Formats: sequence, C-alpha cells, structure tokens
Amino acid sequence: MDDGDFKINLTIVGLGLIGGSYAMAFRKVNKGRIWAIDLNENTLKKAAKKDIIDEGYSMNNAYIPLKKSDIVIIAIYPEALIEFVKSNVSNFKKGSIITDVLGIKGKNIDYIQNILGNDAEFLGGHPMAGKELSGFDNADGAIFKNANYILTPTSKNKRETIDAMRKFVRAIGFKDITEVTPERHDEIIALTSQLPHVIAVSLMNSSYVDSSIKHFIGGSFRDATRVARINPDLWCQLFTKNKDNLLKVINDFEDSIDELKKAIEEGHTDNIKRILEKASSKKDGII
Amino acid sequence: MDDGDFKINLTIVGLGLIGGSYAMAFRKVNKGRIWAIDLNENTLKKAAKKDIIDEGYSMNNAYIPLKKSDIVIIAIYPEALIEFVKSNVSNFKKGSIITDVLGIKGKNIDYIQNILGNDAEFLGGHPMAGKELSGFDNADGAIFKNANYILTPTSKNKRETIDAMRKFVRAIGFKDITEVTPERHDEIIALTSQLPHVIAVSLMNSSYVDSSIKHFIGGSFRDATRVARINPDLWCQLFTKNKDNLLKVINDFEDSIDELKKAIEEGHTDNIKRILEKASSKKDGII
Repeated sequence: MDDGDFKINLTIVGLGLIGGSYAMAFRKVNKGRIWAIDLNENTLKKAAKKDIIDEGYSMNNAYIPLKKSDIVIIAIYPEALIEFVKSNVSNFKKGSIITDVLGIKGKNIDYIQNILGNDAEFLGGHPMAGKELSGFDNADGAIFKNANYILTPTSKNKRETIDAMRKFVRAIGFKDITEVTPERHDEIIALTSQLPHVIAVSLMNSSYVDSSIKHFIGGSFRDATRVARINPDLWCQLFTKNKDNLLKVINDFEDSIDELKKAIEEGHTDNIKRILEKASSKKDGII
Repeated sequence: MDDGDFKINLTIVGLGLIGGSYAMAFRKVNKGRIWAIDLNENTLKKAAKKDIIDEGYSMNNAYIPLKKSDIVIIAIYPEALIEFVKSNVSNFKKGSIITDVLGIKGKNIDYIQNILGNDAEFLGGHPMAGKELSGFDNADGAIFKNANYILTPTSKNKRETIDAMRKFVRAIGFKDITEVTPERHDEIIALTSQLPHVIAVSLMNSSYVDSSIKHFIGGSFRDATRVARINPDLWCQLFTKNKDNLLKVINDFEDSIDELKKAIEEGHTDNIKRILEKASSKKDGII
C-alpha cells in the first residue's frame, strides 16, 4: 500500500464537520468504498448525492457497513464514542482498524481496547484541524492540508497498524504525525487546544465586550476570539473529561497574566519589556 | 476633492510597518508628492528607489518637506510623537493637517493641539490594521483593505478637516471610519487591542509552553498567540500610558476566566454549557 494508492473499505461514523471532511478527503485518494453512519438521514442522503460516500446507514443498520470495513473512523462526541463501540462490538470486521478523532483520550482508549479484545484494533487519532463552524455543511477536505496529526498508540497496538494509519492520514494532507501516550496527549492538548478555547470564550464573555466595540476591532481581537463560537455540548465533555490537566494550565496561564499585570500596575518598564521580549523569543522558537 | 482624486503633498514621519504601508497605499491614489522622514537613511533610500516616496529626509532636515506638506502623518512611538511635534512646531505649513497612527490618544492630543495653536490642525487617527512583524521591509499597502479606522476629534477640530481625512483614508481601503473622543478611544482600545496582546503574550509565556508542544499545535493556539511576537518598546509605552483602562479590562477578563474555571472545577455541566453558549451568541452579535 503506497501513499495515494489505497483500496480500503472505509466507514465513517458521524458525518459532521470532521467526519464529512474525512469523507471528502479520502474520496480523492482511496479506490475502496466509503460508507457513513449518522443519526441524520438528510445528511447521509446529501453526502451520497454528492458522491462523497457510497451509501449511508442509520445507527440501527451500522452492522452492514462495519462488517465489511477495513478501517472505521468514529467522529462523534466522547460519550457517544464509548456507546457506539459497546453496541457494535460484535459487528467490526476481524482485523479491522478502528480510530477516533477526539481531542481527549485518557482512559477511553484502555476501556475501548479492552471491550474489543483481539478481533479489531483500536488506535487513537487526533487531527489538529477544524473550523469554528460545525456540521456536515461546513465540511471541507482541504482542512487537513499541512495540519498536525497525533496518534496515541498503547502497548496493544501493532507497529504495522500504526504505520498503516500514518500513511493513510499523510495521503489526505496531514504533515507532522506524532505518536504519544494517551495520557501525555491529554496533558499537552489541555494547553495547546483547550486553554485557547477557554481564553477565547472568556474574552468574549468579558463584561465590557458588547456591540459598541464593533468598529474598534482589529486582527488581534478577531484572532483571540475566533474559536469563541464553540459547540457547547462537545466542549463541555472535552473540558470535564480533562478537568485536572485543564485546571493546571488555566492556573499557570493566570499566573503568567498576573506577572504582566503586576509589572504594568507598578509601571515597571524594564519588567514589562522583559516579559514582552520573552514572549517574542518563545514564539520564534515554537511556532 | 473626490475619492481617488487627490493631489496632496504628504509627509510621512517614520517609515516603519505602518508608515511604509501608508506610503505604498497613498502612492496609488494620490497625484501629489510623498516625502518621508526617518532616522534610518537606508530605509529612505530603499523607499525612494522603489518609488514609494519622492524623497527621504533626516530628522534634521524635517523642515524641508514639512513646510510644503498639506498632510503630515506621524507614524512613530508615543513618546517620540510629542518630541517630534515640539521640535517642529514652527515648521508645519499653515493650514496643514497633522495626524498620528497611535493606539493610545489620551492627553497627548490636547497637549499637541495646545502646542500647535492655530497654524496647523492635529487630528488623531488610529488605523486598526497591522501585522505581527514590524519595520519597513514588512510594509504592505494592502493591510488597510476593509480595516477599521478611528478618528479622535476634539472641539478644536474643524468638521471639514474631519471629512477630508475620512475621504483620504477611505481611498486607501479603510471601510468603517468611526469618530470618538480620545478618552473613549483609549477605553475601548484597552479592550479590543491591548488586552488581546496581553493575553497572547501571557499564553506564550505560560511555563508549560516549550518546544515539546510544537507538533500539538492547531489553529486555536496559533491564533491566540499570533501577536505574541510583539515590539517590546512600542507596546511597553502603549500599556503604561493606558494603565488604568488596561488594568480594568485585564481584571474583568480574569473574572470571566474564573467563572468558567469554577464551573469546570465543580463539574457543573449546565454552567459550563451556559457559559459556552453565551460566548457563541455574543460572538455572533459582534464579530
């Protein structure tokens, strides 16, 4: 199996922004069949009509595509993911690879791998791509282009499965593909994804932010609040399931802002400049 | 004088990112001469060679273009602005309009208007556009396209001057042009520009942010820290000169983040969702 030369039967569970984008992207590089499972019949019909998928199935008929699928990408919320795997444990094809797209891994992965036993192999995946809009109508196969992808293998994953998944996601545009433990994933993601969302939401919710500021907005405010239009159910689950890691980085961020606030309060220009210089040089080194 | 039909002799003081971008943008819509004054001789030569300006002058020779200029745009730091006006008070052409580009107005405007008396008219201006990079080499006349522009007239400004400036900046791409008092400008800018910079810097300076997170960065972190590469001298002046307004909005932002933190800490999903929904709906209403 070479890059761009796939013949894989694929099922995508949940045809929202990410699931829909996966379907579009894989359609271009995969000669096998692509099926989707979703609660929304209209979405499935729309996707089939646009030839993004071959056929759509309801949750009740999930077994039909699952039994024939080499890879299953489950692109639904954390709590629904567990339920879906539990309900379909006997429906996955022997030897198939199952993956998710979630921004939280934690104990879910152990739990799912234990349920599945040796018949199908679950390998956690997290595409670091998205949009501030959700749903199939906003799906776009191009969002993965040059984005980061994180794999969270455990001792139960085979090296060949990990390598196959690396090739598969590289073919749709992901550039840096990194492997970490599920625990380390959650620690880092609290900082690199959840904290920026907490900040954007909190800035938007500041009491002085109202429609009177509309004409005074520049790029910095627009960027800082881009992800404030958030999916409340999804992010509530992500935040609460990663509570300890998230609280740790929020507190650390607050200490950092307090340091700058104190320097401004005291009018200590040397300290202010030192803090600003540190941020510039850290940014140059990282992003 | 109609849009796009200007014959104005213009001097730009400070040919950095903003000054240079102004020169490039006005060059396209203005048939008059464009001169620049800068400390850096090389920048002036480069700009003249590229035909972005007609001729460059050192600070010592500032009087030469100033005496002939209908409009003077001073695009230098807050403290240098005051010094420049003081040193050149007798050099401005009678009836000329002088403006600045600074993100802080406060008492500077009163002070400058008093120094100038009735010979030249100072009208504060603030282009809500920029880049995370500074200097003439990063200048780009397109950065003003569809951006917001703020005018901060006082009782000393003539209506015709304000209207002329509106036309002039609209011609280079600014879309929404708003008039507020210098005091209100500083209050709002603390929120819409300075606070996002404080946040970006503080996030970048968080102790958990180091090079190990490089491959785990998605759009939300990238956007939240875009402006963390900051010009320390400029922003130190902007922050300290707007200290009271800035501290007020930092504290308010911290209250907002504490509310979400508390909800996460308590695992109070209804509260978390309510907070996230509020941010989404505020964003829809404002940006």
